[in-house]
Amino acid sequence: MSSEKGNPYDDGLERRPANFTALTPLGFLERAGRVYPQRLAVVHGQRRFSWAETYARSRRLASALARRGIGRGDTVAVLLSNTPEMYEAHFGVPMAGAVLNTLNTRLDAESIAFMLEFACARVLVVDREFAEVARRARAALKREILVIDVSDPEYLGPGEPLGGLDYEALLAEGDAGFEWLRPLDEWDAISLNYTSGTTGDPKAVVYHHRGAYLNALCNLLTWGMPPHATYLWTLPMFHCNGWCFPWSIAANAGTNVCLRKVDAGRIFALMREHRVTHYAGAPIVHSTLLGAPPEWRGGITQQVHAMVAGAAPPESMIEGMERIGFALTHVYGLTETYGPAAVCARQSEWDALELAERAERNGRQGVEYLLQDDMAVLDPATLEPVPADGVTMGEIMFRGNIVMKGYLRNPTATAAALEGGWFHSGDLAVRHADGYAKIRDRSKDIIISGGENISSLEVEDVICRHPAVFAVAVVARPDERWGETPCAFIELKQGHAATTAEIRAHCEERLARFKLPRAIEFVALPRTATGKVQKDVLRARARAGLQSGG
Amino acid sequence: MSSEKGNPYDDGLERRPANFTALTPLGFLERAGRVYPQRLAVVHGQRRFSWAETYARSRRLASALARRGIGRGDTVAVLLSNTPEMYEAHFGVPMAGAVLNTLNTRLDAESIAFMLEFACARVLVVDREFAEVARRARAALKREILVIDVSDPEYLGPGEPLGGLDYEALLAEGDAGFEWLRPLDEWDAISLNYTSGTTGDPKAVVYHHRGAYLNALCNLLTWGMPPHATYLWTLPMFHCNGWCFPWSIAANAGTNVCLRKVDAGRIFALMREHRVTHYAGAPIVHSTLLGAPPEWRGGITQQVHAMVAGAAPPESMIEGMERIGFALTHVYGLTETYGPAAVCARQSEWDALELAERAERNGRQGVEYLLQDDMAVLDPATLEPVPADGVTMGEIMFRGNIVMKGYLRNPTATAAALEGGWFHSGDLAVRHADGYAKIRDRSKDIIISGGENISSLEVEDVICRHPAVFAVAVVARPDERWGETPCAFIELKQGHAATTAEIRAHCEERLARFKLPRAIEFVALPRTATGKVQKDVLRARARAGLQSGG
Repeated sequence: MSSEKGNPYDDGLERRPANFTALTPLGFLERAGRVYPQRLAVVHGQRRFSWAETYARSRRLASALARRGIGRGDTVAVLLSNTPEMYEAHFGVPMAGAVLNTLNTRLDAESIAFMLEFACARVLVVDREFAEVARRARAALKREILVIDVSDPEYLGPGEPLGGLDYEALLAEGDAGFEWLRPLDEWDAISLNYTSGTTGDPKAVVYHHRGAYLNALCNLLTWGMPPHATYLWTLPMFHCNGWCFPWSIAANAGTNVCLRKVDAGRIFALMREHRVTHYAGAPIVHSTLLGAPPEWRGGITQQVHAMVAGAAPPESMIEGMERIGFALTHVYGLTETYGPAAVCARQSEWDALELAERAERNGRQGVEYLLQDDMAVLDPATLEPVPADGVTMGEIMFRGNIVMKGYLRNPTATAAALEGGWFHSGDLAVRHADGYAKIRDRSKDIIISGGENISSLEVEDVICRHPAVFAVAVVARPDERWGETPCAFIELKQGHAATTAEIRAHCEERLARFKLPRAIEFVALPRTATGKVQKDVLRARARAGLQSGG
Repeated sequence: MSSEKGNPYDDGLERRPANFTALTPLGFLERAGRVYPQRLAVVHGQRRFSWAETYARSRRLASALARRGIGRGDTVAVLLSNTPEMYEAHFGVPMAGAVLNTLNTRLDAESIAFMLEFACARVLVVDREFAEVARRARAALKREILVIDVSDPEYLGPGEPLGGLDYEALLAEGDAGFEWLRPLDEWDAISLNYTSGTTGDPKAVVYHHRGAYLNALCNLLTWGMPPHATYLWTLPMFHCNGWCFPWSIAANAGTNVCLRKVDAGRIFALMREHRVTHYAGAPIVHSTLLGAPPEWRGGITQQVHAMVAGAAPPESMIEGMERIGFALTHVYGLTETYGPAAVCARQSEWDALELAERAERNGRQGVEYLLQDDMAVLDPATLEPVPADGVTMGEIMFRGNIVMKGYLRNPTATAAALEGGWFHSGDLAVRHADGYAKIRDRSKDIIISGGENISSLEVEDVICRHPAVFAVAVVARPDERWGETPCAFIELKQGHAATTAEIRAHCEERLARFKLPRAIEFVALPRTATGKVQKDVLRARARAGLQSGG
């Protein structure tokens, strides 16, 4: 055959409407609404929506937006908590052909104004809790924007609606039978997520339908999630579109249990009431649950599956989750990879290891997601793989369909991030003999002291093992003699005490001398909306001088 | 934005090597081999292969084929049982860029010669059991073909190898580190499956990487299969590439338990020994298991999941599977849809129904697979949907990524099958109020008697409910007065007896007069390799006259 002209397997066998459809996660909602119309889709306080209702409401939203002139290439921004409206926006906005931009609800008015301006957002949907910030952001905008007010009966705090159109009134304008717009191409944008960049303006990451579809499915496959799971929204949907889980749960025809705020008592109550089987979040979410009184967990008899990302789970968390019987899966990713795009895939032989070793294995960032093409640890200069020796550092890079379309209006950053056929994560890691990657640090989190590289994560891991320590962050402080030295900010467990001398002694036993923190301070760690420690704040503080020097 | 020129979400955000990869199921094996190298991949008799070994052997196969000049656009045909070699061929052949053509091992030499010729196969891999047929097929070919002999130690029956190259010798020629060929486009062909057409020459259905990838994943999602399942090969891999399960199990990093022949004793022994969790097959496979002595099931304590397709499971099967505690999933599809592309998705409220009603619900062909775009019941003339009234007949049609690329070298048949934006299945069905499709008949299985349409399936369903009946096939017999009349061929359960008068009385209670079978015969039903009853054989026999008239 090779010698003949053309390939008989292509001859006359081109794509046709019958055998080629653009991949999109929006179809998952259509199917759930049709096949499981009566099944519970979304719960929030006293409100209940079936899949038929959620589909109808999402179509109404799409229809109403379309009637107001919103369509392909337009941006709809939302400043919402984890509510039914937020869930519906994940379908209704792209069903109008538009792009959903979920804004971090902890941001200040100036940042929000910048983001609305940068994405040319034509609509802003706002929960009453965030109305004040939105009001100031709107005032800073140089143009009109359609404001939609969401009044969630579960929110009892302060705040006056912006005085825009009420969300339910908007839905009433729409047609529940609306023929929603499918993407013209699976490469079309579905959403926009700003990075929480710490230097300069945030970058606007564009997701497409193909990637959202594949990562939504990959979440299900990674968890081996049986149909009709019950998923609790401990993870903000504004963060990487809730790691694509809004679309996963529609594919699963499961139940979304909404949650405005991470609160251990409320979480356990919802787990008990709705028999929650799955939830995800940053380490702080899980440590909050582990720190709660054991009796709060009473009556939770189902198997609960937890997913953690944002930082490797420390040993105490691995041990704690085993103790309470929650199955923990450690995943890893970035805004640019639709949330998780790697998993610390469990190996059955780990079960026989001692706790510390098991925790070390589970703390690795692991391997690429099943539907991601590849994750490698490469020398950033040569793009050659580092040896799998557990020592040589390289940069984690991803390749495949679960990598962003690019940064909006930023060709330079897009080209740099996707250069050489890989997405450059900025995370520095080693590769272990089993092929699993383990992050040593963000480039900027490496502390260079006397010419030696110190991994702030390594120092943090050691300090975290002290029984009184709840959480720790280690950052660099400029030093005339050494260049930089490590400084440790420590948050103690409630009811526990420790002195800086005790911590120092604990470190001296376990760390090389040049890695010892030169300064230690006990604090409440400043955190972002997603529970990440704000190291920038701490770096500024370290530069300004600490209370207790080393 | 709509008013501006261009779409900012496309501007400079084209596909790049970092963020776009062709979908292919071949990567599932690469990942399983790398992430789970020591885990058991394939078991066959005393032979055991880990995922690292299966990956290495598949690469060797690809490499050896490539060194012998096999590449893109070439066809490699195999005449194999469910053995490790057959599993490896599903990866190794397309890893050489070639197209895998699995031949039905029950076919005669003439058919096989036709198929080898039509697909211009350059290689034929043959198990010793089928060597004699292959020898005759080769003799009928007008050209040379590279023959590879497989000698499976589990096969102890007659047959001499063809005298070609030994499979293991071929592997030894190859490089285990071969850089296998990824598809240039996910639309590239991966395999070729001949339909079991009953009239004229069989059609050659081309599958592509995209469809194989999606359906392999959809099998996992449909079953909610947890990672590392143990799958027993009761289904021939030559049939629609085993419904794409070779690729599913690699994605799942599960274990493939090979099986040459459907034999209840052997199946239960393997289930017990390997703790099999999943298996699939035609109804005959399941009824064979149900018909076996209960003590054969001893020691099987794990939950077993069964998948049935090829015909709706009768009430006795639903009841039987419930009794032995196997969870049954009914799927539906055709060669042209990569095997199953629809599922009778379970509804929780069915649990409360009486057995007969539950069986009726589970017997529906249901709704499209999650990753298929749509399945509809349409008027074949207008392509308008039939009302969901459970009565109006239409033709089942599919649309989406789980529809074949087309028929090889047959533009007329391709155009006809994919006309109007739908794949025309040829199956006639009604749509129930819940949206589920229920097949009434193949177009050619409808019996038209006195101007009335009689569904042979309906008559079969009724006869099947008689306690002595194991299986039944109803076909049309030409009749001078009525045009056609129904004739019933019945296979009785072992140890049971019934008379034609008893069957007739049973039918009279349950069927309209014009639908009653005019002739009844007790026989051993002729079956195809996949357990489908050969209605053509019975039609010929009905025309020739039956023993007992009605």
